[in-house]
Amino acid sequence: MKNEIHEECGVFGIYSPDGIDVASACYYGLYALQHRGQESCGIAVNDKGVIHCYKNVGLVNEVFTKEAMSEIGTGCMAIAHARYGTAGTYPRRNAQPLVVNHIKGTMALAHNGALTNATELREKLELGGSIFHTTSDTEVITHEIIQARLTSASIEEAVSRMMDVVEGAYSLVIMSPKKLIAVRDKYGFRPLCMGTIGQSTVFASESCALDSIGATFVRDIKPGEIVIVDKNGVRSDESHVGIRPKSSCVFEYIYFARPDSVIDGSSVHIARQRAGSFLALEHPVHADVVVGVPDSGIDAAVGYARQSGIPYGIGFIKNKYIGRTFIQPVQADREDKVRIKLNPVSAVVSGKRVVLVDDSIVRGTTSAIIVKLLRDAGAAEVHVRISCPPFTHPCYFGTDIDSCDRLIACRHTLDEIRDIIGADSLGFLSCENVRHLCDNTTGFCDGCFTGDYPCPPPEHPEKNRFERKIMEDDI
Amino acid sequence: MKNEIHEECGVFGIYSPDGIDVASACYYGLYALQHRGQESCGIAVNDKGVIHCYKNVGLVNEVFTKEAMSEIGTGCMAIAHARYGTAGTYPRRNAQPLVVNHIKGTMALAHNGALTNATELREKLELGGSIFHTTSDTEVITHEIIQARLTSASIEEAVSRMMDVVEGAYSLVIMSPKKLIAVRDKYGFRPLCMGTIGQSTVFASESCALDSIGATFVRDIKPGEIVIVDKNGVRSDESHVGIRPKSSCVFEYIYFARPDSVIDGSSVHIARQRAGSFLALEHPVHADVVVGVPDSGIDAAVGYARQSGIPYGIGFIKNKYIGRTFIQPVQADREDKVRIKLNPVSAVVSGKRVVLVDDSIVRGTTSAIIVKLLRDAGAAEVHVRISCPPFTHPCYFGTDIDSCDRLIACRHTLDEIRDIIGADSLGFLSCENVRHLCDNTTGFCDGCFTGDYPCPPPEHPEKNRFERKIMEDDI
Amino acid sequence: MKNEIHEECGVFGIYSPDGIDVASACYYGLYALQHRGQESCGIAVNDKGVIHCYKNVGLVNEVFTKEAMSEIGTGCMAIAHARYGTAGTYPRRNAQPLVVNHIKGTMALAHNGALTNATELREKLELGGSIFHTTSDTEVITHEIIQARLTSASIEEAVSRMMDVVEGAYSLVIMSPKKLIAVRDKYGFRPLCMGTIGQSTVFASESCALDSIGATFVRDIKPGEIVIVDKNGVRSDESHVGIRPKSSCVFEYIYFARPDSVIDGSSVHIARQRAGSFLALEHPVHADVVVGVPDSGIDAAVGYARQSGIPYGIGFIKNKYIGRTFIQPVQADREDKVRIKLNPVSAVVSGKRVVLVDDSIVRGTTSAIIVKLLRDAGAAEVHVRISCPPFTHPCYFGTDIDSCDRLIACRHTLDEIRDIIGADSLGFLSCENVRHLCDNTTGFCDGCFTGDYPCPPPEHPEKNRFERKIMEDDI
Amino acid sequence: MKNEIHEECGVFGIYSPDGIDVASACYYGLYALQHRGQESCGIAVNDKGVIHCYKNVGLVNEVFTKEAMSEIGTGCMAIAHARYGTAGTYPRRNAQPLVVNHIKGTMALAHNGALTNATELREKLELGGSIFHTTSDTEVITHEIIQARLTSASIEEAVSRMMDVVEGAYSLVIMSPKKLIAVRDKYGFRPLCMGTIGQSTVFASESCALDSIGATFVRDIKPGEIVIVDKNGVRSDESHVGIRPKSSCVFEYIYFARPDSVIDGSSVHIARQRAGSFLALEHPVHADVVVGVPDSGIDAAVGYARQSGIPYGIGFIKNKYIGRTFIQPVQADREDKVRIKLNPVSAVVSGKRVVLVDDSIVRGTTSAIIVKLLRDAGAAEVHVRISCPPFTHPCYFGTDIDSCDRLIACRHTLDEIRDIIGADSLGFLSCENVRHLCDNTTGFCDGCFTGDYPCPPPEHPEKNRFERKIMEDDI
Repeated sequence: MKNEIHEECGVFGIYSPDGIDVASACYYGLYALQHRGQESCGIAVNDKGVIHCYKNVGLVNEVFTKEAMSEIGTGCMAIAHARYGTAGTYPRRNAQPLVVNHIKGTMALAHNGALTNATELREKLELGGSIFHTTSDTEVITHEIIQARLTSASIEEAVSRMMDVVEGAYSLVIMSPKKLIAVRDKYGFRPLCMGTIGQSTVFASESCALDSIGATFVRDIKPGEIVIVDKNGVRSDESHVGIRPKSSCVFEYIYFARPDSVIDGSSVHIARQRAGSFLALEHPVHADVVVGVPDSGIDAAVGYARQSGIPYGIGFIKNKYIGRTFIQPVQADREDKVRIKLNPVSAVVSGKRVVLVDDSIVRGTTSAIIVKLLRDAGAAEVHVRISCPPFTHPCYFGTDIDSCDRLIACRHTLDEIRDIIGADSLGFLSCENVRHLCDNTTGFCDGCFTGDYPCPPPEHPEKNRFERKIMEDDI
Repeated sequence: MKNEIHEECGVFGIYSPDGIDVASACYYGLYALQHRGQESCGIAVNDKGVIHCYKNVGLVNEVFTKEAMSEIGTGCMAIAHARYGTAGTYPRRNAQPLVVNHIKGTMALAHNGALTNATELREKLELGGSIFHTTSDTEVITHEIIQARLTSASIEEAVSRMMDVVEGAYSLVIMSPKKLIAVRDKYGFRPLCMGTIGQSTVFASESCALDSIGATFVRDIKPGEIVIVDKNGVRSDESHVGIRPKSSCVFEYIYFARPDSVIDGSSVHIARQRAGSFLALEHPVHADVVVGVPDSGIDAAVGYARQSGIPYGIGFIKNKYIGRTFIQPVQADREDKVRIKLNPVSAVVSGKRVVLVDDSIVRGTTSAIIVKLLRDAGAAEVHVRISCPPFTHPCYFGTDIDSCDRLIACRHTLDEIRDIIGADSLGFLSCENVRHLCDNTTGFCDGCFTGDYPCPPPEHPEKNRFERKIMEDDI
Repeated sequence: MKNEIHEECGVFGIYSPDGIDVASACYYGLYALQHRGQESCGIAVNDKGVIHCYKNVGLVNEVFTKEAMSEIGTGCMAIAHARYGTAGTYPRRNAQPLVVNHIKGTMALAHNGALTNATELREKLELGGSIFHTTSDTEVITHEIIQARLTSASIEEAVSRMMDVVEGAYSLVIMSPKKLIAVRDKYGFRPLCMGTIGQSTVFASESCALDSIGATFVRDIKPGEIVIVDKNGVRSDESHVGIRPKSSCVFEYIYFARPDSVIDGSSVHIARQRAGSFLALEHPVHADVVVGVPDSGIDAAVGYARQSGIPYGIGFIKNKYIGRTFIQPVQADREDKVRIKLNPVSAVVSGKRVVLVDDSIVRGTTSAIIVKLLRDAGAAEVHVRISCPPFTHPCYFGTDIDSCDRLIACRHTLDEIRDIIGADSLGFLSCENVRHLCDNTTGFCDGCFTGDYPCPPPEHPEKNRFERKIMEDDI
Repeated sequence: MKNEIHEECGVFGIYSPDGIDVASACYYGLYALQHRGQESCGIAVNDKGVIHCYKNVGLVNEVFTKEAMSEIGTGCMAIAHARYGTAGTYPRRNAQPLVVNHIKGTMALAHNGALTNATELREKLELGGSIFHTTSDTEVITHEIIQARLTSASIEEAVSRMMDVVEGAYSLVIMSPKKLIAVRDKYGFRPLCMGTIGQSTVFASESCALDSIGATFVRDIKPGEIVIVDKNGVRSDESHVGIRPKSSCVFEYIYFARPDSVIDGSSVHIARQRAGSFLALEHPVHADVVVGVPDSGIDAAVGYARQSGIPYGIGFIKNKYIGRTFIQPVQADREDKVRIKLNPVSAVVSGKRVVLVDDSIVRGTTSAIIVKLLRDAGAAEVHVRISCPPFTHPCYFGTDIDSCDRLIACRHTLDEIRDIIGADSLGFLSCENVRHLCDNTTGFCDGCFTGDYPCPPPEHPEKNRFERKIMEDDI
């Protein structure tokens, strides 16, 4: 319903010495990670050192037809990627995994995150004659690894040297002819965990992807850690571990991750429910029913209801048959477009004072419509509670929480926002309590709420997308 | 998740004297009724007496591409149909609406329900030389109307005469060159309601389809009523009203209908929540959390939690990115197939005594897997509560609740079922309380629980599908 | 290139007691008959009396994907149909084979031709309460057979009685639960032949379809003959043979049929080559090269060259990669559209006096463009020779040679046509010589050239398509 | 029919200062060049310096749907490519045009030909840290240009410096932000010509592509020439012209090119017809009819007939409805597979002594089947005449005439080949006369017939495809 904030990716990798169908494992792993990226997806399979890759724009079940699955075949390891990219960045060309050939063989790479010094690194590489096929910062990582590989004894040494120069957010799975490697940046911005099934080792952005293939969760990859899997087993390079303070994205818990995932030791569902409880404490209200906006506001609504003692109710029915080819009504206004997919349950809200819990307000447009749907369905009062603080700063670490002029909280006071969305009252979770959503209360990046970034943002963020128009060439 | 019981259809119709895009209205109406039939769908548009129809197997958003929408064009009225048909009954050939030409012009018809004397009527028609293009009983209705039309002054008179001979369940929308007609059988087995938007009149199986196009609910069609819409407005033929006791399907409230629909004056969501409350009263248990099986067990779970005071929790995350082309894991067992789409939230159930609320048990297979998923996720106890009585008799009125040998409750005691599904305790809603789910407490068909059918079942139900193998012809 | 005249259908049928894959045989048979109908196609397979049918708009290789082939399965007999229907006649609904159920079982039917008394028969049937699902006259045949079947001892007797009342052109293949039947109307308007492969019996509109599956040609079906195949072998009912003069369509030889077919004992290619020879004798000219318009003018061009002694040349290259999804240039004029697909070979025609042979002129538009292409490529003179007489009358027997106002020869003299198409000279084959294209010189229908029809044309041809607009119903 | 030898590519480019729809021009240009490559195709459009590219496996009309065309948009220049790649070389990844970003902007490149020192160049580049995304030698050209660009004043200077190091066959169209560049290697192996339409400049592999968009042929690009088009008009860099002897591929005239093309001043059709005439002089025979194998043997057959005085006949009908999705008969033998698509015309060959003209024999399998089809159709004698000399050496310059062990003429004598294909006599065109097919009689590469290559073949041809299996990495 929201389509306002997007995680930029989910990654998955599997190394199987015991004959698991690694391509199918990737398929189901990606399917479990689909919420992290619905624009394009891809799977690369390593069959005795030869890598077959298939990727395209679309959802997993659209891109990976039986024909596509048979085209990639199978092998002893594979990596996969689901991607969301901001509009206009050539989704087809930027689909991942990236597969490249170099002097030492072939390499495939999938990336979740965003670099902060990609522009500088790319310019330096281009001055050395490097060619780029995409506009994504992921290709910069690839080049840095391959450059380092020329003078490294192994691919993992090259990866380690890449980590010396690349700054920002990156959770990576990398496949060389004989090794599968998982890497998490020094801050641990984006999640990455490890599991096992039989003798196979699995990496995934979230633990729900391990569950989906029946794998057992082992542990999270540490910020700065490199984990290498090959025929000799699993080993870890911790040379970059601990040199930066852990700063994992708190908004993963609030919005991006799936509630059944456990990230860095904390359950996403519990974190969201706790957000609802805090909200009930911070912003109590006399009301008859608590409803959540499906699907992302449900968990916090349950938490609000439990804490407040106000009954939890099912306020909306979301049509679940939506597909890529659904025809949007052209003549209809934005309200009609929402109502086709989200219908209030009058019997629950009619004549009631309603607490409406949602996870965030970005521009405010959708919130205003949802409040209006409730009032049209007979709600006597609508009290909006948001399970995170207002967005006031852009995110540079792998999401599209964007420049201030598109964030309602940058330009309006709380009272103005309440009036814009038509609510009787409005409450956001405080920055203070956001830090208490997880069992561990430190080690988070909350820059989008506070402007306090764990590492310097890009110098020229506007150039960061590598999309230049007219070139200096050809004068 | 369940895919065990299916409603056989949803119907929709619109008459627009004021230029609404009737084809688009059907598209969004069908989309809202998609839960009633996912096998095939179709739309027939009447453009100044010429009917253009497009139908195919698939979901609404798959069948109705932009090309298909432009093929049907637009006009001043239209009818639409979403269908589920039991396996093997030629889904492509049996897709609706049926469009036929006869001496007085053309007619389109969409049907929700099942006849009890179709075999006899069809045999009689065939002996008169009639030809059938489908294996559905809907075509029998068509023939009866057209036969009656030969000696009737109007199409509505022909419909009325059809009602004298056809027995069983039928909610129909019918389109002649100049009229739109809605009909509900004398018992009112299946729902059918009427709404308006501007000067247009709309009919739909459920009120949620009116909501989806912004129409206002006016009233339910009465059992036995014929409503006719043409350029002179809306009028009603009540000559068949009241001659049979109202016997609307109680399982619509428990399972088939969408919670945001209101049927015959009662909210489906409230009925389900009430079922949960009754369950808590009939089958109390000491437990820590109440969870529902998504999506159909959620409402009753909320009701159980409220009544019992045990906290409501979100026990499962359902993957919502499933599509028609999703590749089922071939090697996996049935448990894996369920887990790919439904993952328990360990943080909610681990170490807890769980009340698991679902809407029904048919064969028991899926229930057993879901109980096991909860135990694997750490649940200490699993108490299953079912928001309807056990199925003990087949349904002949438009659902596929089938012969006894496929119903677990026909062959096993309650204790056996509890053991088969692996629950610590098991409780079904009583037949007594099923009658109290709605505001009105009489007028329901609960034959699938009791064997008390409001009208005689078919004499030869096994012949009812018109699928004969080797024919007597050609000796 | 031409797309101006269309045959309306090709039919195919196979009965295999020895395990041939009848569905595949139909596929390749249809593929060989594709030139007779490119709008829709279908295959119906009889598996022990149960008929599975799949049909859709599109070419054989588009409609029959692997999924579609697996949907129809296989059996011991099958029939198939490729169709061209005039614009606007609901191609999807009118696709064949028709499959119907009746009191004696099931029946599938495929039809090539057009009836002359369909309107009268249909009205009579409708007055008896019959319902029609299509707007094609084929359904009338179906009803007449089924009506007769009620009082006939066998399906073949019912077919025979249908032949007593149905008038016009029809080559049919019919499948009952246990029999395959081939029928050719009393005049033999459309071709139909029989072959064998192993113990299997095959029927096809043209012998080239027998060749394509490796079957051996046995004989043509006689005008008025009914051939029945079942487990007892092949037998013939000749009760309608010889009661009307044979009147097979001469334009099959000139345009419709494939050159490698042999129809009623005469080679199509030889007939066309002979047309070229007659043309050279009737309309000699001093020239340097004879070229044909691909593909249908090539055979006659070779004949003209041989007879005249003027060298034959390859004047045009036709792009063979055209597909259904080819995007027509929107901005371009009609000339550009032709040139994209048909390019003159300058080296052959530049500076030369060219004889351009084509098979027909309908409206003249395409001919004018082709003459211009030759002149632009440097042709010094262009002498157009047409291998049939001018069309002056509509055809009522299964082609779309239409009403006079769309036939250039109805409204213009020979000299005017020559000027309109921009030729230096123009010659048509005479009606006299058209009769000498085949080895047998009598027994042809040449009504489109002469207006002499072998049977009365329809009384109300304009009503013949069963497409009525506003109906009398509903007053 | 043959599918035995493949040209590897066709290229197309257009620069339009006057608003031509360059994407559509590419579409029709590619469509005309489809015979040069049917595996994949692509179009890259330059919109004010930003290049949008769409490419995929499939034919032009399959890949470029309306959606794809709208995805690439339009601009002031565009290049396009149709590709055939030998099996297993990752058709999806190797599709062209290649689009890359570098320090000076962006560049798109399309290539017809094959390099002889690609392996050495690539290894050197990889040792410098270069990364390769494809396995095609085209990417080596790209890298060489970009490396040179770092120290060049302009893109054309960089192209010129690339020509100093790259050896082998290459006809290129290159697009920089502001320029369109066409390049032909120093030997002129592959054709490349220039035309104009309005103020726009067009480059194409063959002149038939100019015709298809209504452009006027201007001239061929000289071997070694670089033609640059930008806002200042068209200019030429001839610094590499004349430093090698012209050595254009003679097999373009015999087989690859379209008959309506004119290459380096000679008509392809006339060259083929001349080949037939020479054949008649070199290998006369008493016979009744001359037939050609469609489509590539037709022109030479006409030449043979003219020279010999034996009548030309149409011996085969080729089914033209073949599509990408056509289902090959699985059970059938190779002969059946041919017959489905190619049927002899019995009336032409039955009882006749037939001269069968074809353009080449590679492995001999298809020739043997075609001879058998003629005999089955009644041919009394079959005399095979081939319009080129026997293949005895591989081609390294952009075709897949392969290693000796797959060439029948490397392993068998003329008499043995005649017996293998079942002909009564067999004659090949002599190497001497191959040189006289065009107006100019020197400047050809006929290495595949003679082993005389104009430049040294690759040192390690077997490594030339860059497809290594297990890598040395990761020890």
